[in-house]
Amino acid sequence: MPAKSLHTSSSRRYVVGVDIGGTNLRMALANARGQILARCRTSTTRISTPPDLIRHVRHGLDHLLRQTSLPRPSLQAIAVGVPGVTDSASGVVLLTSFFGQWRDVPLLKLLESGLDLPAAIENDVRLAAIGERWRGSARGLSDFVFLAIGTGIAAGIFANGHLLRGAGHAAGEVGYLVVPGTALELAAPGAPGPLECAIGGEGLRLQWQRICRENQLTLSRSDSVATGMFNRASAGDPFAHTLLRRTAQTLAYAIYDMAVVLNPSLFVLGGGVGVSPVLLEQTQLILRRFSEPAQPKLTVSALGDDAQLLGSIRLALDTAPSRAKRPK
Amino acid sequence: MPAKSLHTSSSRRYVVGVDIGGTNLRMALANARGQILARCRTSTTRISTPPDLIRHVRHGLDHLLRQTSLPRPSLQAIAVGVPGVTDSASGVVLLTSFFGQWRDVPLLKLLESGLDLPAAIENDVRLAAIGERWRGSARGLSDFVFLAIGTGIAAGIFANGHLLRGAGHAAGEVGYLVVPGTALELAAPGAPGPLECAIGGEGLRLQWQRICRENQLTLSRSDSVATGMFNRASAGDPFAHTLLRRTAQTLAYAIYDMAVVLNPSLFVLGGGVGVSPVLLEQTQLILRRFSEPAQPKLTVSALGDDAQLLGSIRLALDTAPSRAKRPK
Repeated sequence: MPAKSLHTSSSRRYVVGVDIGGTNLRMALANARGQILARCRTSTTRISTPPDLIRHVRHGLDHLLRQTSLPRPSLQAIAVGVPGVTDSASGVVLLTSFFGQWRDVPLLKLLESGLDLPAAIENDVRLAAIGERWRGSARGLSDFVFLAIGTGIAAGIFANGHLLRGAGHAAGEVGYLVVPGTALELAAPGAPGPLECAIGGEGLRLQWQRICRENQLTLSRSDSVATGMFNRASAGDPFAHTLLRRTAQTLAYAIYDMAVVLNPSLFVLGGGVGVSPVLLEQTQLILRRFSEPAQPKLTVSALGDDAQLLGSIRLALDTAPSRAKRPK
Repeated sequence: MPAKSLHTSSSRRYVVGVDIGGTNLRMALANARGQILARCRTSTTRISTPPDLIRHVRHGLDHLLRQTSLPRPSLQAIAVGVPGVTDSASGVVLLTSFFGQWRDVPLLKLLESGLDLPAAIENDVRLAAIGERWRGSARGLSDFVFLAIGTGIAAGIFANGHLLRGAGHAAGEVGYLVVPGTALELAAPGAPGPLECAIGGEGLRLQWQRICRENQLTLSRSDSVATGMFNRASAGDPFAHTLLRRTAQTLAYAIYDMAVVLNPSLFVLGGGVGVSPVLLEQTQLILRRFSEPAQPKLTVSALGDDAQLLGSIRLALDTAPSRAKRPK
């Protein structure tokens, strides 16, 4: 269906979702049913201040409108996923390690005034949980955990059918978990947490590099390091397999402890490290021994890189002031 | 105010709360404002079947009515706290290790038909959380954890202002947590969990007895063993202090991990072990090093043994079919 036929110039029936990542700002324009009609991405390397971000988002909006030949008034709302501790109710980014560490940035207000659009913001991993619940591996579930394991580690938690945010908006910052196999202390204020150091992408890279150095192994440069290590483990490399097993064991403890507290029906694993099938398999093998009070069930994200973007579209649709019908 | 003046014979404005404990069945009759007018308790040693329990509760009801000179029709509802995995919505006790291990007992239905009263059932530690939120240390909080550490260990969790139950009603069964300092595996199906073995009342008793045996120390019989050990630690006994420090360290990891997942504003410690001021102090000392993503705040139960009973009264008031006014 050509884009032109999707709108009438007088209606405002489209929304935009934004996913702020480590290297890219990804945006998508969707219709009222949540179908993505256009996408764009831009590098985040030149963003350091909130006005920089607003400017990049505005350029992205213009680009999406040109792609779809939609008029500006057809946009109903925008929602932005933020990598960091975010107060979605007041619309303030309390803390992010991105952009040279922002604190207490009233991003919602800046977006609404800078773009002249109703806006919403939310922690990016919580948006991924929303995305997986809407269109992915957790469709219709009321109690589940989306666990993102990439460079960082965090969880988007649904409990009783609602996002769990916590008293200080920091629920699900599970990169800080201390379990058998992690460090027993926090390294320093602001430093990555024990679980993140042990099984996050950067932690794995450092461990794998050390193993390679100590054993005169050469690193494949074609893959991300965690992927390369997992591939080697699958191919029978004993060094890689030892690290894989250790990673799976630590991940199993973290998942089990979350399951003991929350009793979710499912864990959806996402992020560059989390989507590895070989890691999933090893972790499930270990979790078979943990049958009480309930054995955690795992699966891999169905949406992959799009989980956060789809979550932001869902949030934008919920933010839009008037819609004919709520999409499923 | 004499009991006689508290009712008119035509009204049904009173409720009964029941707390099923390891050795005692405790019951209280309260008015519509939640004030306790009478209490009774009976041993649970002769209870083994659900009809036994119903019979004991009926005798307790009669006793409470005699104490208050209230007519039977003045009772509006009854709520019962159950030590075990409980589906409060369907009113079924899924699993309890009490009474020789019940499974799938439709207790709500049995109560309503056996007592001819609207009834509700709930996990006992969740009721304690309700009690502390209503009248105790967690008044008005939306996100907090009531952590009961007695013979068993479990948590009643409020998130977003609602009880967190989990997909299989087993949320908060934190006696199963695996943290540094606990066993790394589950002992066996149905056995106490790793955290409970490490710092629960029975686990501490076994450890303290072993320490006493190995070091030719005599045990005081006047106190419960955990209390006796904590008193000795306070008095400067180096053996007891080592066990206290180890207990506090393990408890600190468990609390910190729960805080990382849930980000509650407060942990309320209850149960025979949990209310120890010296354990609280040692645990707080350790948690000062855990500042990210948020430092857990701890306090001790304000209601003590009455937390569960007050929670059951609150639940009974919410269950009562008609009330003039909802108490705060």
